[in-house]
Amino acid sequence: MRYHRVPDETIKRLPIYLRGLLLAAEEGRKRISSQQLAEYLRLNPWQIRKDFSFFGGFGKRGVGYDIQQLTRQIKKILRLDVVNRAALVGIGNLGSAVLAYPGFGMYGFEIAAAFDSDPVKVGKEVNGVKIEGVSKLRRLKARNITLGIIAVPRQAAQETADALVKAGVKGILNFAPCHITVPKRVKVITIDFVMDLARLPYYIPAS
Amino acid sequence: MRYHRVPDETIKRLPIYLRGLLLAAEEGRKRISSQQLAEYLRLNPWQIRKDFSFFGGFGKRGVGYDIQQLTRQIKKILRLDVVNRAALVGIGNLGSAVLAYPGFGMYGFEIAAAFDSDPVKVGKEVNGVKIEGVSKLRRLKARNITLGIIAVPRQAAQETADALVKAGVKGILNFAPCHITVPKRVKVITIDFVMDLARLPYYIPAS
Repeated sequence: MRYHRVPDETIKRLPIYLRGLLLAAEEGRKRISSQQLAEYLRLNPWQIRKDFSFFGGFGKRGVGYDIQQLTRQIKKILRLDVVNRAALVGIGNLGSAVLAYPGFGMYGFEIAAAFDSDPVKVGKEVNGVKIEGVSKLRRLKARNITLGIIAVPRQAAQETADALVKAGVKGILNFAPCHITVPKRVKVITIDFVMDLARLPYYIPAS
Repeated sequence: MRYHRVPDETIKRLPIYLRGLLLAAEEGRKRISSQQLAEYLRLNPWQIRKDFSFFGGFGKRGVGYDIQQLTRQIKKILRLDVVNRAALVGIGNLGSAVLAYPGFGMYGFEIAAAFDSDPVKVGKEVNGVKIEGVSKLRRLKARNITLGIIAVPRQAAQETADALVKAGVKGILNFAPCHITVPKRVKVITIDFVMDLARLPYYIPAS
């Protein structure tokens, strides 16, 4: 089910709430109020309540949220209640860091395939995933892979996106610092960490 | 100068506008309308105009923005009009990817120092930066370094943050997927790319 008229900014915050809930559960907690969740994540409690209101609100006033139940509900909204299989393209430093990243499983992701153009890397196994040559990047749909992760240099990003789309992926996480063009039915999220670094100096008092 | 009552969400978008302007300038353009900038970045033009209104608006109605001038103004607001020197801690796969990242210079950043706890790495040079032992991580202020980038494993993130704060940094970009605690005067931005990946399935139609 796709909820309509939910702002993208709310959808952006749901994974952050989910992270807070998973950490709170790790600490052995059972219930959490929006106030406590907000303190935990350094966000505003009214923002959390407003975001939740798009889905009819969760939990009862005064008693806080049942962590396990809320986790399940948010996972369902975000479609993280099923395993989402992803193909990673580009096994350089960044791609290797992505492969080794411990957090994917917690959110129901599995890096199910890895591709690189370097023949030296092809056939090697990194974190239990065997690296395949980019010529093998096709028919991902048949392998039940719906997501692509681009970790190739900027110059190769567009052709990689084209290959992923042709292979049947429906969503792409792009680490290359450039705009890539895909058909409208495919969703692209680009991560450029300079964008986050670039906000830091604003918050720093001039000395 | 620090502008008051500007929402964090606006500050988050300014670097994205800046990226659009830098790319448009690269293409040889001189002027751009909010409509064109919005199309370029796949954002809403009203959002851009609203964000700019916090700074008294830029440019005149109908003629579009002077790209060079607007770039300068946004850089000044974000304090990217000076060189911001950063220390990177943790030169594993992710840290190496950060060191090799070509985009920092465009936004006025310089990775001025790199630290790792592995004696095998210490003394080696990566992208023109010599790796120092973590015991050398002190008095960064004297080296004119105001920012820290944490690319160490989760277990070492808090002690690294403590060391960076003690060494005098005022802002931290944290790649470790965990919450770190710092004094209020220090600004922390945490990047967790699972948070972006976790939004993707929501946008994908069920098949």
